[in-house]
Order: sequence, then C-alpha cells, then structure tokens
Amino acid sequence: MTNGIGRLRWAIPEGFLPEGGVVGDRALASHETACILNAGPYEAHVEVTVFFEDREPAGPYRVAVPPRRTLHLRFDELSNPERIPRGTDFSSVLESDVPIVVQHTRLDSRRAEIALLSTIAWGDDG
Amino acid sequence: MTNGIGRLRWAIPEGFLPEGGVVGDRALASHETACILNAGPYEAHVEVTVFFEDREPAGPYRVAVPPRRTLHLRFDELSNPERIPRGTDFSSVLESDVPIVVQHTRLDSRRAEIALLSTIAWGDDG
Amino acid sequence: MTNGIGRLRWAIPEGFLPEGGVVGDRALASHETACILNAGPYEAHVEVTVFFEDREPAGPYRVAVPPRRTLHLRFDELSNPERIPRGTDFSSVLESDVPIVVQHTRLDSRRAEIALLSTIAWGDDG
Amino acid sequence: MTNGIGRLRWAIPEGFLPEGGVVGDRALASHETACILNAGPYEAHVEVTVFFEDREPAGPYRVAVPPRRTLHLRFDELSNPERIPRGTDFSSVLESDVPIVVQHTRLDSRRAEIALLSTIAWGDDG
Repeated sequence: MTNGIGRLRWAIPEGFLPEGGVVGDRALASHETACILNAGPYEAHVEVTVFFEDREPAGPYRVAVPPRRTLHLRFDELSNPERIPRGTDFSSVLESDVPIVVQHTRLDSRRAEIALLSTIAWGDDG
Repeated sequence: MTNGIGRLRWAIPEGFLPEGGVVGDRALASHETACILNAGPYEAHVEVTVFFEDREPAGPYRVAVPPRRTLHLRFDELSNPERIPRGTDFSSVLESDVPIVVQHTRLDSRRAEIALLSTIAWGDDG
Repeated sequence: MTNGIGRLRWAIPEGFLPEGGVVGDRALASHETACILNAGPYEAHVEVTVFFEDREPAGPYRVAVPPRRTLHLRFDELSNPERIPRGTDFSSVLESDVPIVVQHTRLDSRRAEIALLSTIAWGDDG
Repeated sequence: MTNGIGRLRWAIPEGFLPEGGVVGDRALASHETACILNAGPYEAHVEVTVFFEDREPAGPYRVAVPPRRTLHLRFDELSNPERIPRGTDFSSVLESDVPIVVQHTRLDSRRAEIALLSTIAWGDDG
C-alpha cells in the first residue's frame, strides 16, 4: 500500500438527513456518513461539495484524513461554511489530493427500529 | 468539475414499487428513487427506459437536471407516457447527454418499520 | 442500446437463504434475488454456478432472459440440478452469452419487520 | 473460470461492530462480514488489514480460501493478532495472491428487528 488505494474523486448522488429519530445516543441517531479510507502514507486533504435540487452548491467543506487512518464523516456534523438542512435531498462530491476510497452509509431511526443502507461511492481520478 | 462527473448511461436492474406502506407522508411512503447528480456546467437531458418481465419496455420518460444540481427521481411519480404499475418487477436504464452519476435507493414501509436499500447504479458511456 | 448494456460475467460473493420469515405471501417471504437486465436485442442464455464453503459448487443452473426484458431470479426457486439449502452461506457467478447487468437483493423477513440489502454485482467480460 | 474472477486487492471503508443485539443465535447476532469468493483453481491466501481513526492499523489477519469455495469472514471472529473492538469505526483492506471478489455485509440486531446493509467492495490489482 505504498502509494495508497483508491481514486481522487468520489460522488454520492443520494443524500438525506432525516428529521427525528433516536435522540441522545450518537450511534443510534439518524445519520448519513461518508466513510473515507486513506490507506496510504500521506495525509489526505479532502474537499466536500454538497449539491441540492434548487440552489447553488454548498462548500467546500474541508477535512483531513491522516495517513493509514479512516474517517467516518457525518454530514449532520458539517457546519463550516454552513449546516446541511434536514429533510432535504442532496448529493455530494469528495475530492482528495491522494487516493482514497469512499463508502456511503445511512442509519435511519425515525421509526422505533433502525434501517440501514450502504454502497461504495462512484470514483474516478478527476 | 469543469466537465462534469460520471457516465452517460446507467442501468438499475432492480425495480419494484411495493403496494401499501405509510400513507400521507411523502418522505415515509414506500418509494423507489434514482438519485441523479449533475455536477457539471451543462443541463443534463435524461431519458429513462423501463424494462419488464413480460411486455415491451415503457418510455422514454424525459427529465432534465440543471447544471450543478441533483434530482432525486421517484419512479412512482413518473406518469408520461404511462405510470409504472405497483407490485411488478422492473429494471431501468438512464441515458444522458452529459456525464451524470446515478444511485438507486428504495424505502419500503409496508410493515410498521421502514427498510432501506441503496447502490450506485452500473455506468458506462454507451 | 443496439448492442446491449453490461458485462458477460457477474459475481455475487454474498448469498444466504434465511430459514423462516413470512409465509404465504411470495413478495414478503425471505428471498435472495439476482435481478438480471437484458437491454439488448438478443436473448441472453445465462448459466449460474453456486459456490459453498465446504463442498463442490452446484450448477450450472440455466435461465434465459428474452431481449429487452428483465428477470428477477430468486435463488430459493432454483431446483435443477439441485435446491440451494437454507441457512447456508453461498456465493454465485452468472455467465451470459450477451451483455447483461446484475443486481443482488435480499429481503429478510425472519423478524416481524423486513430488512433489505442490495448492490450491483461485480462484473467483467470473462 | 480457469483463471479465477476478480481483483487482488479490496477496500471496505465502512466497518463497525455494534455493541449488543441478539444473543445466543449466531445467524441473528450483530455482525460485520467480508464475503470472499474464490472461483478459481488455486487456494487464495488473503491478508486483512484493519484501519482505525486514531491508532495504527491492526493485522495482518491471515485467512485462506480453498479453490472454488467461498468464505463469509466475520470481523467479530478475528482474534489473531488482536480482536477488533466493538463500538469503534474501522475500515479494512483485503489483499490476495489470486483474484477474488469481496462483498461487505452487516446485520445489525441492536433493536428488536434486524437491519441489513451490503455492497460490493472497491477492488483493484494493487
């Protein structure tokens, strides 16, 4: 894994932060996550752009992933330059300066039981 | 993202509109969605063809996605040239004139709790 | 879509037919499905091989998908040359003579509520 | 399938072993699985490395998959060189000496009902 694994650019067309759900337990609260793996030897500087149906994109949000580390990035915790509204459809694109792999996961706890979805994002090299 | 991201053609082999489910709450009603991201600078003109097990395909359904926007297209809301029947297996193909990325998601609320599935569709350039 | 869409060979490493679940309603009974899209102009002849942890593979199972049709193939309904046992981990490979696209979906109804998973399978051209 | 199917290296950015869930029934207990298909004629020697947010990676864990067999590897059963802690975000990379295909699945039974997620992992040839 000398040169890392993955691609420089990843797209996640699906995005939605449900309103409601379990309160007071971070692991069970409804959330939308971009799991980022940086398996290589250099820190990854990642810019996230969020797209909407009826307004200009938000961002870039900037996160760093140290070498040989993972970051499970929760969209509901992004706040700079602005929070992502709940109950609104969105998409996201992640651009990195070194190869990463991105997987999209949602936990929905609006009902008493949880529901899960996950998929590897769509990656290319920009 | 000067030239957009993605592919020109996307296939979603799985498709099913459950009968029943939550009524009166659009976000929780059973639905099948093709989330389309157009990250590029030109409007995307997308044609959707729907395939069945025992009849000729339906469509094309035509949708447009403005530049730098997303569209979470619900199959149960397609009506022209015809509605997609509930309780019937189908597949779909989306063809665009500019690169897009497509993710398939279903929310099933036939039972008291919801169930979710999602995957990036299969993309090529036609 | 003159020449079809997809690949000639698809792998689904995950496979499991749960024991139990809803009885008497085919749509809600636990099932494992390979959704096959044949968007092209020729009939697809597909051979399915099923792999296990501790015995020789089963199959080939043979199915045909007419041109411009989809087939949502349920693994619990395969019977020739043998049924796939419930409660046993398996994998599958689908090989076609024309391009197809394959998506794997499971509905699990062992508990009162259903759970869903789905992913596009892994495809190449053999 | 003379030469096997798949890739030599697979990444799963998402990983999480829930605490709690169904006890005493292995099939319904919360688990995280890497389903590995070795469709080829040679035994696959697979090394698994596990990445965390705030410490050095764990591993390699070594598993073998016989020719023409599948292995549904449960992360909660890995113990050498160390167990993977519950309630902690992780990622994993699988490296094989022959082509394999990998699919990631989680069953979460923290609540009364189960939730499922699954995706084909991200593969390349190293």
